[in-house]
Amino acid sequence: MALYGVVETGGTKMVCAVVAGPDDIRAEVRFPTTSPEENIPQIIAFLAAHHAQTPLTSIGIGSFGPIVLDKSVPNYGSVAPTTKPFWSNAPVVAPIQAALGVPVGFDLDVTTAALGELTWGAGQGLHHIVYYTIGTGIGAGIIVNGQPLPCMMHPESGHQRLSRNPLDTFAGNCSFHLDCLEGLAAGPAIEKRWGTKAHLLPPDHVAWEYEADYIAQAIMNTILLVSPQRIILGGGVMEQLHLFPMIRRNVLSRLNGYINTPAILDHIDDYIVPPALGNQAGMLGALVLAMRAAE
Amino acid sequence: MALYGVVETGGTKMVCAVVAGPDDIRAEVRFPTTSPEENIPQIIAFLAAHHAQTPLTSIGIGSFGPIVLDKSVPNYGSVAPTTKPFWSNAPVVAPIQAALGVPVGFDLDVTTAALGELTWGAGQGLHHIVYYTIGTGIGAGIIVNGQPLPCMMHPESGHQRLSRNPLDTFAGNCSFHLDCLEGLAAGPAIEKRWGTKAHLLPPDHVAWEYEADYIAQAIMNTILLVSPQRIILGGGVMEQLHLFPMIRRNVLSRLNGYINTPAILDHIDDYIVPPALGNQAGMLGALVLAMRAAE
Repeated sequence: MALYGVVETGGTKMVCAVVAGPDDIRAEVRFPTTSPEENIPQIIAFLAAHHAQTPLTSIGIGSFGPIVLDKSVPNYGSVAPTTKPFWSNAPVVAPIQAALGVPVGFDLDVTTAALGELTWGAGQGLHHIVYYTIGTGIGAGIIVNGQPLPCMMHPESGHQRLSRNPLDTFAGNCSFHLDCLEGLAAGPAIEKRWGTKAHLLPPDHVAWEYEADYIAQAIMNTILLVSPQRIILGGGVMEQLHLFPMIRRNVLSRLNGYINTPAILDHIDDYIVPPALGNQAGMLGALVLAMRAAE
Repeated sequence: MALYGVVETGGTKMVCAVVAGPDDIRAEVRFPTTSPEENIPQIIAFLAAHHAQTPLTSIGIGSFGPIVLDKSVPNYGSVAPTTKPFWSNAPVVAPIQAALGVPVGFDLDVTTAALGELTWGAGQGLHHIVYYTIGTGIGAGIIVNGQPLPCMMHPESGHQRLSRNPLDTFAGNCSFHLDCLEGLAAGPAIEKRWGTKAHLLPPDHVAWEYEADYIAQAIMNTILLVSPQRIILGGGVMEQLHLFPMIRRNVLSRLNGYINTPAILDHIDDYIVPPALGNQAGMLGALVLAMRAAE
């Protein structure tokens, strides 16, 4: 049976595992995200120890962004310039591939989670899906024809410009952009706007009307530009499940019957859905990356 | 030498031609767009007459939207329900294919124009481009990996929601959506807002600041969601070439250095560009559809 190495590099922690399939995790280790000088050797040590016992077929890595995904440039597989300390321009794929000598698949964390949901979760049987994670930050993984959207660089959908609710006096929480999705609707924006953690706000608080409206604007843009077959909303903020019917109503109201697609107009409950894999989406998506890298 | 039939079905006129290549038009005919009962037989009559002399290899059709592009449904190749009189649910591909008996390629008009620009125009040598047409209406053709973006239905990018300029008191010109791109920035919106035709407004009129700002918002969303290698802006409004530097400045200002892509941050003049094919883009794109249908 083939074994695969899977890696999630996150903003706060690294998760590495050896797996034989989506329900067959053979070993797992976690450690805090610090610097590439410390973390990359930790990842290699874990994978190499298992590789020495039973060879790994391939490795899949889902990484925090921004990352370099253009395979035609020398720094493919590295972290792009970022405000995150220590990680600007850090190679990720190259040292791991050099140490292990097996194929390595690599993509953005949210794209990787989208691949996991497509393959074993809420996107099963579909070809074109978008997976938004709405938590400390906001990002979207866009899958078309079963593959990450081919583009110049990975999407940065969290920074799309929204139309501000005229009653919303919160200044916004993005240091780059006025009134972008992440600055208005990520968890820290909710907390700063209302002075309390999002999950402590009652379901009938007006905060959720603002939130549903902002997320619905992003979904409307996503439908009009990319037209996926389903939109999956995950991340900590979306654990407030009462947001789903509010978002669905707002999207239908905004579209105003314009899109002639029964999948949206008649079946919105199946169109905007929660994830099926919870916090396993990233790991399972990394397995998809590994399996595809082996092909 | 292979001959191809190319067809543009437009809101006001139909253009049909027989061509041997992008610079080799053998015959062309135009007639006013009326009803499918009248126009489809006209198209067939023109193509069939040439087909009887020298067989056509295949046919390419770029159509006004909305259209049905899902090949798995029985009404593939027809016009979707539309407010345009007579054309709702009208089959386009089926009667032409039945009459001619050759492969028929079919896509949305603006997607077809994007394919033309990709193949012989401002997108040559690239793989991922977006072509916006900004005129009486607004639409975008999105090309990834050299193909129209795979999605559930074709993009309707003209109706993305924008953030209104606070000084703009114009109510908007879209009967479906408040503050959408087409409603705020298409030619008729400019004319209604200022009481004069867009091309009669002087280049230093504040109208162009509004216009550049709205188009830049759409471009920013497009970059953040789809990340093309180049964005081509065509259509009647974009014949005001002084808009280009205004739009480029506004896009850079909005991105605020966020996207780590030299193609955008360092080479914006080559990133947001006019079309190279003018009003030939649709015809040449239909030739691309025909050639691909023949493969």
